Amino acid sequence: MKNTNIDMKEFFEEVFKEARNCIKLKHGGPFGAAIVRNGKVIAKAHNTVLRDNDPTCHAEVNAIRKACKKLKRFHLEDCILIASSEPCPMCLTTSYWAQLLEIHYAIPRSVAAKVGFADDFIYKDIKKAPHKRLIPLFMYKELKGKGEKIFSEWQKKNGALY
Amino acid sequence: MKNTNIDMKEFFEEVFKEARNCIKLKHGGPFGAAIVRNGKVIAKAHNTVLRDNDPTCHAEVNAIRKACKKLKRFHLEDCILIASSEPCPMCLTTSYWAQLLEIHYAIPRSVAAKVGFADDFIYKDIKKAPHKRLIPLFMYKELKGKGEKIFSEWQKKNGALY
Repeated sequence: MKNTNIDMKEFFEEVFKEARNCIKLKHGGPFGAAIVRNGKVIAKAHNTVLRDNDPTCHAEVNAIRKACKKLKRFHLEDCILIASSEPCPMCLTTSYWAQLLEIHYAIPRSVAAKVGFADDFIYKDIKKAPHKRLIPLFMYKELKGKGEKIFSEWQKKNGALY
Repeated sequence: MKNTNIDMKEFFEEVFKEARNCIKLKHGGPFGAAIVRNGKVIAKAHNTVLRDNDPTCHAEVNAIRKACKKLKRFHLEDCILIASSEPCPMCLTTSYWAQLLEIHYAIPRSVAAKVGFADDFIYKDIKKAPHKRLIPLFMYKELKGKGEKIFSEWQKKNGALY
């Protein structure tokens, strides 16, 4: 349910500021994100792919990691994500693993695609059959049994689902 | 193109070993991954979500990050990913951003789903309309113009596409 009682515009000002910081510092793409809990920003970040030489350092992933570090937990089930642009599938899936409540954003991926960002392309490509994608996936049926054995070893040890 | 000249089974032994290490150390789910370059493993990792309190620390993401750190670059266009299980959409998209050549895996996500992992569910959920997903997305049309202004500021500064 949309948090209509919260002043979203104030949060968006913060993420736009982060995006502008990123342009100034040349840390990566012009994106900003924040994690909000109980109506307050608990973590904010911009893209640092260039600075950190790390393809996972999108603004949203950086903000989620900062919030997890701050709260000392890997689930943010009481938090929402504010992002300057629509999250890419990496950032979107990270939000599922972090169990975020909601995602709020300003710029649709179609606009990011117009200036060259591949988010929209990736959304489309991963819908294709795995072996037909730009990065083809190869499955080794003959090793499936060995893999399943690992799952049963993990179940016997009451392994965690994370 | 599939690297048929490389002994994949040897690489899979290494990722299965990583997955078993994870079970033993209780660092997270029973998954292992490796990055191979010029026929050699240059980085390997297991899931460390529990150990690091970080939802992004899947085996594949950890292996990609390690490889980037080692090679001091965020593109791995000369590398392949070996994973014990089919990557989740987060790990898959990270592979696109890292420009990996190929992905090879043993266990399909349908098998991981049977023991409780949400990968398959996430693949299905992100195909739905954004506002109908388990984590609903809200777009702020009225802020689109402000966001686009950031993109044009970034273009004027010849910003990077990462």
